[in-house]
This record gives sequence, structure tokens and C-alpha cells, in this order.
Amino acid sequence: MFEAKFQTFADSAAPALGTEHLKLLRAELERRGLDGFIVPRADAHQNEYVPPCDERLAWLTGFTGSAGVALVLRERAAIVVDGRYTLQAAVQTDPASFEVVPLAETTAERWLEKNLPAGAHFGYDPWLITIDGLAKLRRAVAAAEGTLVAVDTNPLDAVWQDRPPAPAAPVVLRDPALAGETTEEKLARISAALAEEKLDALVLSDPHAVAWTFNIRGGDVSFTPLPLSWAILPREGRPTLFVDGRKLSNATRDALARHAEILEPMLLERAVDLIAASGATIRLDQATAPALLASRVEAAGGKVSAGASPVALMQAAKNVAELEGMRAAHRRDGAALARFLAWLDAEAPTGALTEIDAVCALESFRRETGALKDVSFPSIAGAGPNAALPHYRVSETTNRRIGLNELFLIDSGGQYEDGTTDVTRTIAVGEVDAERRDRFTRVLKGHIAIARAVFPVGTSGAQLDPFARQFLWSAGLDFDHGTGHGVGAYLSVHEGPARISKLGTVPLARGMVLSNEPGYYKTGHFGVRLENLEIVTQAPAMDGAERPLLAFETLTLAPFDRRAIDLSLLTPDEIAWLDRYHARVLEEISPLVDTATRAWLAAATAPLRD
Amino acid sequence: MFEAKFQTFADSAAPALGTEHLKLLRAELERRGLDGFIVPRADAHQNEYVPPCDERLAWLTGFTGSAGVALVLRERAAIVVDGRYTLQAAVQTDPASFEVVPLAETTAERWLEKNLPAGAHFGYDPWLITIDGLAKLRRAVAAAEGTLVAVDTNPLDAVWQDRPPAPAAPVVLRDPALAGETTEEKLARISAALAEEKLDALVLSDPHAVAWTFNIRGGDVSFTPLPLSWAILPREGRPTLFVDGRKLSNATRDALARHAEILEPMLLERAVDLIAASGATIRLDQATAPALLASRVEAAGGKVSAGASPVALMQAAKNVAELEGMRAAHRRDGAALARFLAWLDAEAPTGALTEIDAVCALESFRRETGALKDVSFPSIAGAGPNAALPHYRVSETTNRRIGLNELFLIDSGGQYEDGTTDVTRTIAVGEVDAERRDRFTRVLKGHIAIARAVFPVGTSGAQLDPFARQFLWSAGLDFDHGTGHGVGAYLSVHEGPARISKLGTVPLARGMVLSNEPGYYKTGHFGVRLENLEIVTQAPAMDGAERPLLAFETLTLAPFDRRAIDLSLLTPDEIAWLDRYHARVLEEISPLVDTATRAWLAAATAPLRD
Repeated sequence: MFEAKFQTFADSAAPALGTEHLKLLRAELERRGLDGFIVPRADAHQNEYVPPCDERLAWLTGFTGSAGVALVLRERAAIVVDGRYTLQAAVQTDPASFEVVPLAETTAERWLEKNLPAGAHFGYDPWLITIDGLAKLRRAVAAAEGTLVAVDTNPLDAVWQDRPPAPAAPVVLRDPALAGETTEEKLARISAALAEEKLDALVLSDPHAVAWTFNIRGGDVSFTPLPLSWAILPREGRPTLFVDGRKLSNATRDALARHAEILEPMLLERAVDLIAASGATIRLDQATAPALLASRVEAAGGKVSAGASPVALMQAAKNVAELEGMRAAHRRDGAALARFLAWLDAEAPTGALTEIDAVCALESFRRETGALKDVSFPSIAGAGPNAALPHYRVSETTNRRIGLNELFLIDSGGQYEDGTTDVTRTIAVGEVDAERRDRFTRVLKGHIAIARAVFPVGTSGAQLDPFARQFLWSAGLDFDHGTGHGVGAYLSVHEGPARISKLGTVPLARGMVLSNEPGYYKTGHFGVRLENLEIVTQAPAMDGAERPLLAFETLTLAPFDRRAIDLSLLTPDEIAWLDRYHARVLEEISPLVDTATRAWLAAATAPLRD
Repeated sequence: MFEAKFQTFADSAAPALGTEHLKLLRAELERRGLDGFIVPRADAHQNEYVPPCDERLAWLTGFTGSAGVALVLRERAAIVVDGRYTLQAAVQTDPASFEVVPLAETTAERWLEKNLPAGAHFGYDPWLITIDGLAKLRRAVAAAEGTLVAVDTNPLDAVWQDRPPAPAAPVVLRDPALAGETTEEKLARISAALAEEKLDALVLSDPHAVAWTFNIRGGDVSFTPLPLSWAILPREGRPTLFVDGRKLSNATRDALARHAEILEPMLLERAVDLIAASGATIRLDQATAPALLASRVEAAGGKVSAGASPVALMQAAKNVAELEGMRAAHRRDGAALARFLAWLDAEAPTGALTEIDAVCALESFRRETGALKDVSFPSIAGAGPNAALPHYRVSETTNRRIGLNELFLIDSGGQYEDGTTDVTRTIAVGEVDAERRDRFTRVLKGHIAIARAVFPVGTSGAQLDPFARQFLWSAGLDFDHGTGHGVGAYLSVHEGPARISKLGTVPLARGMVLSNEPGYYKTGHFGVRLENLEIVTQAPAMDGAERPLLAFETLTLAPFDRRAIDLSLLTPDEIAWLDRYHARVLEEISPLVDTATRAWLAAATAPLRD
């Protein structure tokens, strides 16, 4: 059978270890005169995927989810997690040590406000908290009449035996043909943006932004090829890049040294002090900059301008070369996906396949392209009721056989040097009932409404989001996640600042790549999600048009399961869209697959009404 | 011919007077040691329609528009107006005295920041500026290194000869059958809301809110039956109502005295001081409360909680009696409108009618119902290119003949004791061309999409707004106003807090009444707007629905002009909606009109496909 190389399925629940580690931490807090401490699931860059040495929350509590925060007091401790993780946190942590607090009921700050004793000294690591996060924490501790203390070194690290070392994966230079824009050009654009906003310097605290600016990639965390690093970009003068020297070959160092001073990350603080001392106004990225940098800037006499990093919007709007790379990656990925879907169609009806089998097979087909660098996130593969959890991640305990007459949902993606993919298909195994086909078709109609949308320049994702929901709404249904997120070019599969969601107020702009993934989830029964990536493009010229218009070009190339569609619910326009899309899938993917897959693909993409 | 009673068409451009008045004001500022002063178009309640004694901006500048602000310095003066009014302000003011500044380019604060000399003392009337407005003003004056001075009495009033007296229209008690909820019940709900938000008291600075709470109406301003007044509602204990005693008959006073202490408005400040002195937390309505009250609360030792008035949401969600009244008002108004539209169809083809003729006729038909208290706003009646100005108000100078083969747009409404109406129809006079019919039909499709929308509880107007635009977007078109605003029950025709617009983040709730008025405007050529009022209702029960759903019930009853529709652009569902709506118009309005109008109505509401 197939094996996964980039993903694991082990359950790592060890609540007893958490209780041990909590004792160690409390003793250390005691030594330092602290009555409490906050342990967020965060590294100094607010990365989505963090290196093992930053998995402090997992070490302390046993909880391995991707978001959460522990609050440790002398007598009590809590772990606050969102709705995805309340069950998992309860299983992975020791209830005698940690109270599991659902975020929807009580935020970390609210819990602290209620439980921190007056007069307590409460510590935080200023590298791990953002400027906004610190402001909230400050209000909570003040309300509880406590004292907030920034620690110089993290007390948890002091007692973490066998803490993994910081990663030091080699930094590689991006092929200029894939980057499409030189670092000189990017630095000039950033400098102009700083001038426009009357800023003297920008600190890049987001390693994705460093990677984009300097046309480099790395391998310090799973799923995203980012090099842990920082940079300071003055409006005028030479930038400084802070990166662990062990990650740089001589050639890479020489190439980077043409654009920037290269320093060790430990020198970041002093470099910030130096610029700030001139009274400079320094933009710190509100989303990722550690609070520590803000206090350094202020202490040294500079002015903090907390706000959006101008790099975020530049990075989001891909250039022609990046889009060409994304298209190539999606053709390659589509071929692997076609092989997988054909294999699944052949094997699933035996009833022997499990979710893990499917994940391993899909990863294997992707690896067989010879170009896969990593998966872009751990696959979400849910059979039957497991698919009703939008963020489900299969483990050996939860692994379920893919049953007959069920829907099987698989959300996955690959990292290729030319681009990042993210695709969800929901497959009818055997015959699925009328309810499932109705829901599948309503989700599909919403997906098509987004794919076909035409909208004026200036329109935000929030304005498009309702189009994806309308056909569910009219049946009294909805889904509780956004319709789409931004996607990087061989970078993070979740990239800001634009998104298609109620909260997506950033206007969509040409070259952005966004997912289009409406869903429907019936708890305990089944789930549907249909996801393609879309490029924001200029709409075709139109007689009488008065406003510049945008539209989407679909990147993802994979059939939607015709067996799950209730044709009677589709309009002629929707059927025409689907037929055109399928014809394109056939045309672009056929030449890339073996004969058997090609035959499967021809059937899977046949016009809906023959 | 017909005459208007509630509307005037005179041009009141007198720029020279503005120059005279500016001199008087500057002399007074000099006497008071002020280097500048701000004159907003506002009364102390931030009313949309202000009494003549508060038309300070018009007195000072000559500009009579409904929004704008003058900034007077020693050597320069500016009037900042939004896009609707740049032309009008230029015509009505003396360019030698006032620079007309378009708001889109420069806000009042930005202008001040650039033009106020360092060290200048700049005055403002704290009754006329909101708390947020003051914060912005403070930042601007500080940036210019000036000193901001709150005046005790308005210097403009000191030099305004013949300033009209404050209005003192009688306050009338609302018929309990129309109010549907007693003041006791309303006060109890407000008290519970204050407890919920941990507030000690609420100041009602919005006279609409006073009118709703105490079930009274008045006549102090045009178009809206509000009694200028204030109230303080403590969480516990007796409310105080501040209203000019001359407005109260003995009977009204007695009735009101059962619920509240009645005091003269001049005692408001001292009453606020008194509550604040106990250290109370007092909610001031962010939208309407004058900055003066915030400073009184703080000076007296209270705590200001600036935020939304809890009354706004209560008032917006109409009760069963109010909705029944709105329905009755709309039937009555629909009958008057049918008479008008039938008359227009007979008369307009002669080519002799003008916009003013149409406005006078429609008002007359409404008055002939015997129930019209006022129009709910000055009619917008635009023939041909005049309709391309969404906020056009016809005057004797701009008055235009309604030409053949043109579109004629008329947006109007009535105030009846049982309800407020607001309706726009766009009429094809003669034969209109394919472009006009295309645009009319796209606007109609957007209107129908809103009318037919079904959406979960919690959905905001911002989420619905794009449905109204989608058919314009797909042709490269759009319109630059919101799709809908809230409407009061025999109160303001523009009522918050919900609206259907990009900025409408308040969730829609049962009983709210909102306009549904997409449009399209081709500058210099024509305009289309189609407006009905809609009640937010519970959607009909539905098998399999998982979420509580809302939908709209259409209040307005008037045919859409079938001659302006391009049938080929409508889907069968849209045609079915329109036919059903027209059948309802015919059924409900026929019994209320004369034979000739009935015949016209039958033809105007005939099914689209015979």
C-alpha cells in the first residue's frame, strides 16, 4: 500500500506528562517570583505552523492542536481553545491539572480577569505576544488588579528538558523565472510605500514576507517553505536580514549580501534600538510583530506605527511569472489528483479503504510527480460523519473505513517549487441519498456563483461571500466558516490579507489567489466541501461597461463528482459552466496521465446532459 | 393644477448675504478672542431635518443643502460638502468668501489641520458636535498646534438678527392602538437593557427615541413628526422628560407625568450633573449626543459610556400594531400613488408636464386621502438627465419638462398617523430605448433578488447588499448609494441602526422596516431607481431547515412600469414574483380607487406573459 512521508497519524495524547511539566513550570515561576504565566501556541512570528522548539503549549499541556493558550496560576490552570478543539483538548490534557475553557464562552483575557488574584505578578513572554495581544492582556490583568511582567527569558524553556534545537534548514534562492520580480524591484516598491505612508522603516516580522522580499525559501517548519528570519527595511539605505548563519551556503550568503546586511537574529533587538534612537517612525506589522519590538522602539526613542505591512498586499497580488507557476503546479497536481480519484473509484467500493489509506495514496500520487516538496497542510480526509467536522484530521484512533453509499470528503494540497495547491472534493461512494445530493448540489451552486462572479474593482471578499451561501440559505442551511482564504505562491496555503468571508474587508485585486470552498456539514452524519483555487483577473472587455471589472480564473483542475449532483437543481447557466470546466479539466489533464486514468477522466468529465 | 402644501421649490441662493453674515461672525469672534469657529449643519440632536432657528450654516454661507460644515478663520473660510452638493454649494455661496471643499478630497478636519495657524484659538459649540466629532476635531486642532475652545454660547447666534424662534408645535399622545406597546412596557425593557449593560442611566438625545419611548409625536421640524426633547432614563427610578412646556396641553402633561418628571430643556445640564455626581455610568448615544453632555458627566464625577442607544434597536423592530399601521398606510398611499400614476400616464405624453407639476399632483393625491400629515421628505422628481442625480431636488430653476421617450423617476413618501411611506418608481414616458430598458430591468432584477431573499437570523444588511448589485456588476455597472435604509413608524423616513449597504453590519431582525432601492444612474442621460419598503419577517416554515430564517414582506403597493422591462432578461422565477406582486397590488388597491384608476391599474398589473 501507499505510505505518507509528509504526514503522520499518531495520537500523541499524554496527559500525565502535562501534569509533570506543569509542576516544573510552577516551580520555575516560584523561583522567579511570578504568580502566573501565559503560554500561547505561538512562535515569535505568529506562524501557523511552528517548529518543534516552539511547541510549548503541547509540552506543557499535552494538547497538540494548532491554536490555543494556557494560563497557569499558582493553584489553577486553564487551556482556552476554540470550537474545533474543545473535545481534543479534553482528551489530551489532564483534567486534574487543566480546565478546558471553550473560547466562545470565555476568552483567555476574561478567564484571567476572573481568576487572577489581586496583587498577583503575572508573566508573559514578549516575543510570543503581539502588540494588540499585549494591550488586551494588559487590560485583563489591570482589571484583576494584578501586575503584568514581561520576562527576559521564557521560564518554560528553562525547565524544558530535551527541548528540540531551533531548526536550521538551508535557505535556497528562488529561481528568478519563478519569482518574476527581482529583490531590487521589490525593495524599491516597498521603499516607495514607506515614503507614501511617511514611515522611516519597516520591520518584517513575518518570515513569509522576508521570503517574498528576498526571493528565498527555507524549510524550518512543516508544510510551508519559510526560512525563520527577520528583516529591517529602512525607507532609504541598506536593509538588514536577520537569519541564522548556519542556514546559508556561501553562495546564498553572497547573493543575499548584494541586497542586505546579513546578521544573526540575536542582533535584531540592538538593530531596532539603533534605528529607533534616531527618532524614526517604524512600521511594525500588527498581525505578527512581537510586543517586545514595540517596547524596544519606544524605549530607544522611536515611534511605533503599528499597522498592516505594505508587503502583505504586494505579496498577495501575484505577478505573471508566479501565476504561470501556479498554473503549472495546478496542472501537475490535477494529474496526481485524477490518478487518485480514479484509484479511489476503483478501490473504495470494496469497502476496505480507510481515511488514512486515502491520505497516503493521494500523497503518494503527488510524490510520484517527482516535484512535491511537501504537502501544503495535513490532509482532511473524512468518511461519513467524520466529514461533518470541517477541520477534521485523521489519526489512528479516529481512522474510519470509507463506507458504501457515503460521502467521502478530502481536502489536501501540495507544495511545489512553482506553486502551492489546495483542493477539496467530496466523492459519492456507491449510491448516495437525495438529501446528500441536494446538499452537494447547493454547495456546488454556491461554488459556481463565486467562480462566475463579475464585480467592480474595489469589491471586497465580504461582498462576494453571500453568493456562496444563497442556495443553502434558501433551504434553511448555512456553513460556519469563510468561503475562501488567500494562498501563497510556494508559500503559505493560508495567506492574507484578502479573504472571501464576512470579515474580508480588503478589496480583491488582480493577481490574488483565493480559495473558493463553500461547504455544508450535518453533525454526526456527513459533510460536503467543494474547493478550487481562483485567480482574481481582469474581466473580459464588455460593451457599455462603465467600471473596471474583476472576475475569477479557476486554477484547480479536477472533476466534481457527477454522481452526487441533483441535476434538477442546476440552471442551464450552471450546467454550462460545469460542462465547460470539465471540458477544460479533460483537455489539460488528459495528456499528463496514464491510459487508464485518461479513460476514467473522460467519463468523469463527460457533459452533464448527454 | 395641483399645488404643494408641504414642499417648496424656491431657489434661495443669496451669496451676498453670506458674505455679510460672515463679516458679522468674524467681528463677534474677534470680540471673544477666537481666531476661528466651526459651523456644522446640525442641531443639538443631529437631526436630519432641523428647525429654522438651527439653520446656521445656511444663514452664514447661503448654502441650503442638508449636510455640510463651514470653517471660519480670520482670513479664510471654507465650506466642506459631499459629492451631492459641490455644485449647489458653489452656486449658493460667494466664492470671494467661501472656498467650496469636496469632502471626498478633504475632510473638514484635514482642511483645518492644513489651514489653522499655529497658536490659533479655534471655537466650537459643544451642543452641535458629537463625542466622536469632537475627538476628530481635537486631533486636527492639536496637529495644527492650535487651541480648541468650547464656547458657552454660540457666537453666530449672537449676531444673527431675526433668528427664528425655537419651534413649539404641540406634542400629541400616540393612539395606543397604533403604538402597540405602553410606555411602562417600553421603560421596563429599557431598564432591563441598562441592567444587562451595567449602565446606571441612559440619556435620550435623539428626539425620535424620546417620541418612541413616551408614545408621543410632535411637529417641530419638517417631514418628521418629532417633538424636540430630551430624556434621562435611570436604570431604576423615575425618568425625566425635558420638553418645552408650551408644547404640552394640560391633558398631555398629565398623561406624561404618569411616567416621568417633566422639566424645561434648559434644566437638562443640571439634571445630568446631578446623576453624574453619584458616580453613575451614563450611556450617551454615540450617534446623537452632544459632546457637551460628555464633558458635564465627566466634570460632575460620572462615567461616560459612549455607545449605541439600546432604544435604537427596540424602535427599529416594529411590533404587530405598528406593522399593521404601516400596512394600512401603505394601502392608502398605494391608492394615491395609483391615481397619480394613472394621471401621469394620461398627461405626460402631451409633453406639457414638468417635474414640479408631478410633485404637486402626487402630494395632492396623497392629501386627498384626508390622512396625510406631511410628506416624509421632499420628493425627488427627475425627468431625463435630472434623474441621474440620485438626490436631485427640483427647484424653479432646475424644473424640467417631462419629455417623450424619456424615463421619469419619482421618489416620494408620506407621513400618516399609522405609518410612514417611501416609494420610488421610474416611468417610461412614450417609448424608451433598449439601453434604458436593459438598465431598468437589471435594477428590477436586483430589487427582486432582495425582495425574495431568505437568510439566517444574524445576517446583516451588508451581506444582502451585493444581491441587489449582481446584475449590474455583470454588465460592468453599479450604483453609488446603499441599497436600503431603515424606516420609522410615523417617525423618520431614515431610521437606524440597520441598513442594506456595504456598511450595514447590524443584523436584520424581525419587524424592522427597510427600503429596497437599487438604482442606476447615467450622468447627463437618465436614472433608474425602484424602491419598495420591506418588513423583515420570519420566513415560512420549511422542511429540513436547520437555522431560523428571515425573509421580507413587501409593504409598498404600486405597479412597476411594464413598458420599461426587457422581458428577455428576466428568469421565470423573477416573472412569477412580479406577476404575484402585481396581482397583490391589484387586489389590495383596486377597492380603494375610482373606476378610471381601477381600469388603469388592471392594465398596469396584468401578467407579464399573456
